[in-house]
Amino acid sequence: MSFPVNVVVLAAGKGTRMYSDRPKVLHPLAGRPLLQHVLDTARRLAPARLCVVYGYGGEAVPAALPASDIHWVRQAEQLGTGHAVAQALPHLVQEGITLVLYGDVPLTPDTTLRRLLERAGPERLALLTAHFQDPTGYGRIVRDGDGRVLRIVEQKDASPREKAITEINTGILAAPTVRLGDWLGRLSNANAQREYYLTDIVAMAVAEGLPIETVHPHHEWEVLGINSKLQLGQLERIYQRNLARALAGAGTHILDVDRIDVRGELTCGRDVVIDVNCVFEGRVHLGDRVQVGPHCVLKDVLVAEDTQIQAFSHIDGAQLGPACRIGPFARIRPGTSLANHVHVGNFVEIKASEIGEGSKVNHLSYVGDASVGRRVNIGAGTITCNYDGANKHRTVIEDDAFIGSDSQLVAPVTVGAGATLGAGTTLTRDAPAGKLTLSRVRQTTVDGWQRPVKKK
Amino acid sequence: MSFPVNVVVLAAGKGTRMYSDRPKVLHPLAGRPLLQHVLDTARRLAPARLCVVYGYGGEAVPAALPASDIHWVRQAEQLGTGHAVAQALPHLVQEGITLVLYGDVPLTPDTTLRRLLERAGPERLALLTAHFQDPTGYGRIVRDGDGRVLRIVEQKDASPREKAITEINTGILAAPTVRLGDWLGRLSNANAQREYYLTDIVAMAVAEGLPIETVHPHHEWEVLGINSKLQLGQLERIYQRNLARALAGAGTHILDVDRIDVRGELTCGRDVVIDVNCVFEGRVHLGDRVQVGPHCVLKDVLVAEDTQIQAFSHIDGAQLGPACRIGPFARIRPGTSLANHVHVGNFVEIKASEIGEGSKVNHLSYVGDASVGRRVNIGAGTITCNYDGANKHRTVIEDDAFIGSDSQLVAPVTVGAGATLGAGTTLTRDAPAGKLTLSRVRQTTVDGWQRPVKKK
Amino acid sequence: MSFPVNVVVLAAGKGTRMYSDRPKVLHPLAGRPLLQHVLDTARRLAPARLCVVYGYGGEAVPAALPASDIHWVRQAEQLGTGHAVAQALPHLVQEGITLVLYGDVPLTPDTTLRRLLERAGPERLALLTAHFQDPTGYGRIVRDGDGRVLRIVEQKDASPREKAITEINTGILAAPTVRLGDWLGRLSNANAQREYYLTDIVAMAVAEGLPIETVHPHHEWEVLGINSKLQLGQLERIYQRNLARALAGAGTHILDVDRIDVRGELTCGRDVVIDVNCVFEGRVHLGDRVQVGPHCVLKDVLVAEDTQIQAFSHIDGAQLGPACRIGPFARIRPGTSLANHVHVGNFVEIKASEIGEGSKVNHLSYVGDASVGRRVNIGAGTITCNYDGANKHRTVIEDDAFIGSDSQLVAPVTVGAGATLGAGTTLTRDAPAGKLTLSRVRQTTVDGWQRPVKKK
Repeated sequence: MSFPVNVVVLAAGKGTRMYSDRPKVLHPLAGRPLLQHVLDTARRLAPARLCVVYGYGGEAVPAALPASDIHWVRQAEQLGTGHAVAQALPHLVQEGITLVLYGDVPLTPDTTLRRLLERAGPERLALLTAHFQDPTGYGRIVRDGDGRVLRIVEQKDASPREKAITEINTGILAAPTVRLGDWLGRLSNANAQREYYLTDIVAMAVAEGLPIETVHPHHEWEVLGINSKLQLGQLERIYQRNLARALAGAGTHILDVDRIDVRGELTCGRDVVIDVNCVFEGRVHLGDRVQVGPHCVLKDVLVAEDTQIQAFSHIDGAQLGPACRIGPFARIRPGTSLANHVHVGNFVEIKASEIGEGSKVNHLSYVGDASVGRRVNIGAGTITCNYDGANKHRTVIEDDAFIGSDSQLVAPVTVGAGATLGAGTTLTRDAPAGKLTLSRVRQTTVDGWQRPVKKK
Repeated sequence: MSFPVNVVVLAAGKGTRMYSDRPKVLHPLAGRPLLQHVLDTARRLAPARLCVVYGYGGEAVPAALPASDIHWVRQAEQLGTGHAVAQALPHLVQEGITLVLYGDVPLTPDTTLRRLLERAGPERLALLTAHFQDPTGYGRIVRDGDGRVLRIVEQKDASPREKAITEINTGILAAPTVRLGDWLGRLSNANAQREYYLTDIVAMAVAEGLPIETVHPHHEWEVLGINSKLQLGQLERIYQRNLARALAGAGTHILDVDRIDVRGELTCGRDVVIDVNCVFEGRVHLGDRVQVGPHCVLKDVLVAEDTQIQAFSHIDGAQLGPACRIGPFARIRPGTSLANHVHVGNFVEIKASEIGEGSKVNHLSYVGDASVGRRVNIGAGTITCNYDGANKHRTVIEDDAFIGSDSQLVAPVTVGAGATLGAGTTLTRDAPAGKLTLSRVRQTTVDGWQRPVKKK
Repeated sequence: MSFPVNVVVLAAGKGTRMYSDRPKVLHPLAGRPLLQHVLDTARRLAPARLCVVYGYGGEAVPAALPASDIHWVRQAEQLGTGHAVAQALPHLVQEGITLVLYGDVPLTPDTTLRRLLERAGPERLALLTAHFQDPTGYGRIVRDGDGRVLRIVEQKDASPREKAITEINTGILAAPTVRLGDWLGRLSNANAQREYYLTDIVAMAVAEGLPIETVHPHHEWEVLGINSKLQLGQLERIYQRNLARALAGAGTHILDVDRIDVRGELTCGRDVVIDVNCVFEGRVHLGDRVQVGPHCVLKDVLVAEDTQIQAFSHIDGAQLGPACRIGPFARIRPGTSLANHVHVGNFVEIKASEIGEGSKVNHLSYVGDASVGRRVNIGAGTITCNYDGANKHRTVIEDDAFIGSDSQLVAPVTVGAGATLGAGTTLTRDAPAGKLTLSRVRQTTVDGWQRPVKKK
């Protein structure tokens, strides 16, 4: 843009119909607050000023989204959109254009806003208007015979003829800042709600002979606002479907684009396959040829190439090396790093551990705070006893060790390279390398023992 | 209503296209038999008589839905809807109105039926008719030039002009009871099917000059009947979507209203979040700020405020206190009660147990028939051996106990307050309070032991 | 058909927009490569010759789909569809008809192709054309005033009037083989792409006065091709929905036809219920009254009547007898066979084992390479130690044995009929029938022991 741009985001509303104790703009869509979506978009416009008008919920809103580039302006009383923008005025660069956005309209793309800004100017007002199949409830754009915008008429004031107009006012507009200041100063609250309406500046601009430019979004969802949890859910699905379709279009094989949720950033290598009902949170990268089975939850995970994650796996805060096989029913927790060709099987929990190349933890085990070497086999039911009730300690298992089933490794403890632990061992001291260590009592058979009998 | 209302529910059909051994009206929708839905709706009308005509499946139908307010009338032979209603006649209050419903039309709201009843009267017949985009297969409502109902013409008898009529007969009607008795007595089965059709009373009413009132449902699904499992599934989705949308509209944040199933009653406090693919059965209450993660199954559960239920949790017949953290992969079974701030982690099964405030069962454990105190830490792989092959016994773990990993508590047994069990302990007698108890054999290392060699 | 039919399948394309290293026709839809779908359909036409023209990906394509009835023809350079069919010509039966199919158009039913073949003949060309709501991008069928096909005009060459035509060329056609050879020999590549287009034969046929017959598919999806992973996903959903609706129509109660995936063959007995989000792979049979809970994954499983599979079960390569109860959270792996009335509970893994009538493995156990008799109770946390680090050994548990919790059975080992193992037993030698065997050390309490203290 050839002129400085102010962005003012209106985020003061309560959102009564959300039936929530949380300010509306802090409700999450795809894992991020609604307002965060708007701010992220605004920043892509490189504004000279980024100003957020908050009110309901008080300091909770700025506190939830700390950022040094935002001018936070508190609207103490909610006296209408015009009043809200007026609060921001003193913080704006006076030359140039002011773009007004809404904290509860999260999905407007920056490309649409750029088109709007391109039509604004020092002597022009640019409105984002849209053609809605069902315009009920929205302000309608009234034009003259030559197609020039005359005014905006609200639903409740519209004549039957005006109600038939399907072009609606989104509320998003780009106005010359100096003019805007003048108009806002002249707004009146002489209406039923006793509010100052930003919309009223349109009539002022028309009266002053300024041209009103209009720009349309490419999709209805770009300008939809959120007033209820139902609408929040609807935009969530639109967001998710758009994102999934973009991933699929770029080469990720998604078994059902209507059954994937990405709350954060998901990047995929070549020939990645994602089965149904997976949920991705935070930053997730899936390397080439990674396969994610059905019903998996991945959060903040880097998965290297050729790794297979089977059904019902829950992975959080981990790095998985190449060609690993994970799950089904694997739980991997933060601080875990797997080398290549590691197997983690069913009903296994791994936490804050490194597992070396080719090692296997296949069945019903808990491995926490452990360093596991290469080619280690950890038998079913193995538990690293990392917590003594007060402190956590580390377990070290060196290369080629074989841990017999149902062993307990009472940390801090080390199993030497190539050591073997017998099944059922309670290991309280280090196990020497290359040898068999066990804690075992001879099995005995009791003659004459009688089984308990069912009591009536 | 100013007159007594009889409700007659026709529920005698086999439902051949269900390809089932079960009577059609007993198939479940949202966890309840179809007929149950109709009965629940009928009861909201406070009828003077509630009469169900059953037939196919015999006594299985009354046996499945025992209720003292229902007059069960067996239609031994299925001779048509007119014959079916005639069987009910002797059981009805003669003054007032009779409303005819269908056991396989489950989703008609009582509000729609009230509107229908309001239009009925001693000298008026009221029909529930609907405009269907595709009326194929339904009887059409033929009206005269003044819009008066003349007759109902069945699909197979309809002329091309009549086939173009989109107003269809739902079959639901409200008739003056005395008149109804007269009409039913004059029905003929001189048709291809040799059946007595209830629909034929419309022509009789017209012939007698009675006004025919019509009322329309607000939605097509209100009057859809079920003739196949495919249609059963379709109405299931409509029911679920309606319910989810209502919950979301009232303030529950549902991540995908198309991926939630409620088979029973789900009530939610303020700011509840329900992630994708959850299934709720029986009575479930989620308190304020409860979060339910993706892929959870909850049945008959009370969840207090601020509790988080993570992915893949399966909870049945339990009470969860405030601020608990459950899952992922937690299984909680009937008879379980958790106090506040309890943690139940992955691959943990809890059954018929009470767990006190702040206690933790985080990893791969089975806790059954146990009373666990406050601030208890139950280590990974702990098992309460509650079953001796004949009887079940209880385990008591008192406050502040620390159960070392992989311990077995052979019930009946008590762990005293503040006691510690060493890892791998088999506890067969009570563990005294405040002390360390363990059953441990010294670990030994075998020199010269050779690992097994892979056989060819 | 009264004449021999050649089928030529064009499968040489790269599929640039798949962004894949795999040839396009090898991408799976419903678990089978696209080309496999086309071949399976082609075979239902009992063709005299089945010829596949491959190219991109080289021998990977024939190698992926080995079959003795296919004539594989390599198109070394991709010079267009006309050139591709020409490569196949020498392999075809010369009399009769040649049907041209596409390896990336997977869902055309054989019934539609039969209708097409019925309209083909020695002096007639038959085209499969379709009316698309949005024909953009497709070649349009230009007809004369009498409705006779004149030519096919490609999108880029179409006039505005021609662009308004909604009848499109699917590319699928049936031509008299001798004529086809003649036409192909006369194709020119004098166009922008320097390719030989099969479509050009239509103009030749028209010029020669041959009648052009057209046949339409019943559904748009029958003729949709796949050029991106997005389109692959879309056809996947269409396939799955069709299959689910067919199952539901035939009597299977599917809780959500939009949330089931069948990648292989699923057959169901009477009154089967399948809850939401289940995935079926390979061959799965569900007997009468089988219930499959939500979020289950079944692959190559035979389930006998009355068995209940609860939520989150993952079953692969197993036979389940009648009236079993499986899950939730059960993992059953290949080579497993359950008799009747077997219970397999949560966090239990069973592999390559037989379990006898009425036996129970209900909690957190690993049973691998085992033969378990009847009425056996396997306690929580039991592990068969089947792997010694080099070889696998079998465990035998005879009828009526009771395995105490947290036992390890170090294979090879046998537990005799009616034997009891004490909790926590490490069984290294056979346990005699009818007696109590255990390996237990007396529990001791340590006086004066101090709990560890939290380090700062």
